Amino acid sequence: MSTPLFEYLLRLGDDRLILGHRNAEWCGHGPILEEDIAVANIALDQTGEAQLLLNLAGQVEGQGRDADQLAYWRDETQFRNLQMLELPRGDFGFTMVRQFLFSAHAHFVLEHLAKCPHDDLAGIAAKALKENRYHLRHSSEWVVRLGDGTEESHRRIQAALEELWPWTVELFFEDAVDAALKAEGIAPNQADIKPKWEAMTAEVLTRATVEPPKGPMRMVGGRKGRHTEHLGHLLAEMQIVARSHPGASW
Amino acid sequence: MSTPLFEYLLRLGDDRLILGHRNAEWCGHGPILEEDIAVANIALDQTGEAQLLLNLAGQVEGQGRDADQLAYWRDETQFRNLQMLELPRGDFGFTMVRQFLFSAHAHFVLEHLAKCPHDDLAGIAAKALKENRYHLRHSSEWVVRLGDGTEESHRRIQAALEELWPWTVELFFEDAVDAALKAEGIAPNQADIKPKWEAMTAEVLTRATVEPPKGPMRMVGGRKGRHTEHLGHLLAEMQIVARSHPGASW
Repeated sequence: MSTPLFEYLLRLGDDRLILGHRNAEWCGHGPILEEDIAVANIALDQTGEAQLLLNLAGQVEGQGRDADQLAYWRDETQFRNLQMLELPRGDFGFTMVRQFLFSAHAHFVLEHLAKCPHDDLAGIAAKALKENRYHLRHSSEWVVRLGDGTEESHRRIQAALEELWPWTVELFFEDAVDAALKAEGIAPNQADIKPKWEAMTAEVLTRATVEPPKGPMRMVGGRKGRHTEHLGHLLAEMQIVARSHPGASW
Repeated sequence: MSTPLFEYLLRLGDDRLILGHRNAEWCGHGPILEEDIAVANIALDQTGEAQLLLNLAGQVEGQGRDADQLAYWRDETQFRNLQMLELPRGDFGFTMVRQFLFSAHAHFVLEHLAKCPHDDLAGIAAKALKENRYHLRHSSEWVVRLGDGTEESHRRIQAALEELWPWTVELFFEDAVDAALKAEGIAPNQADIKPKWEAMTAEVLTRATVEPPKGPMRMVGGRKGRHTEHLGHLLAEMQIVARSHPGASW
């Protein structure tokens, strides 16, 4: 039986595993060497955080699964990441806008978790918070630089924002899992985070001279295992090596 | 007019740029999360070293080119990397055998360069030597672990060694560029390095229970801009983003 803490850790871990994978697709394909290195570093941080969170999830579950088993042997409907994070990497502007929207939210979540009463989770969150500060600064700088850049780069950042914004509703999703963990003082209250996130993103997007669309938001579902068609392809790629040699002593 | 030092720096830089790119192809595709992170770290080190070496090459050339221009705007025949490093990444065993064969050689080259009279190059080499120690240890451990592992992993390491070994002759290539730099006390003497490399590789390959093939070696050519068909594809991928937006203010 899946406990709220196990589910919650999967959500945190899967977000970073999937976004880390998307960012890693930039390895060797960045627009400049410096940036190639920077995005790869972000991807590495995220994969490392995912490993810690999924290992902890496995311990909490108590059925002997570790991060590798959770990463490589679950199927699509068992993944708990936000749908926004599984969308294809798009162009460099899209990658930076997504990173910014996610990192701005992660900042407030991690700030809370780093002080929560679950010591192992608090330790991982403190490490991730520090790494996320860099991701947030780096991505927000690019959003401003490109948004307030050339006509072409502005157009791309505005287009990325229009595509991504409707998915952001899912950042604030809460259900019984969150309720249980909020009762224990572990999970933050998303209603408290929302205005802070809105203020932070508004400030950066204004400097970037771009505007979020006014249209309808997307349906949520990632936290319950409902995903876009893109996750299946991503998992096929990510899991192929491990699944080709089950039990191999690498 | 191209000076020996410029050519020499291109050779050092291109080796790391191309191998770093191949290793980066593992980002998000490793057999286990830990290894995904490790190979990505190696790729990052190599890309960072390439950036330093190519920036120095650009300064030495004195025509205003920097590492990005050298990485993204040269064509295939202007690349100076060893052909072995441009071969497709193959399976994980192939990647580790290649890394080991290259890092074992790089160890002795960098050891020499770190003490050479060209201060900037010596500084970069000292940094790279330290990073390469980790690459060498990591790759040699995998070669032994997989070579002396299961029947299947042994078969793969032996096959990788048979494919790669004939290319290693190029590690010891020397021409007028080397002669000029050896006269200045900068470049090492490859004839001195060869027996050390042979001893180091023999020791590891014996522990891995694999044997180099006895057959003929490959033709050399990478240092002169002659490459396999694989480099063109690699460069197309690596250069597409930068070339799609020439002069973009990223």
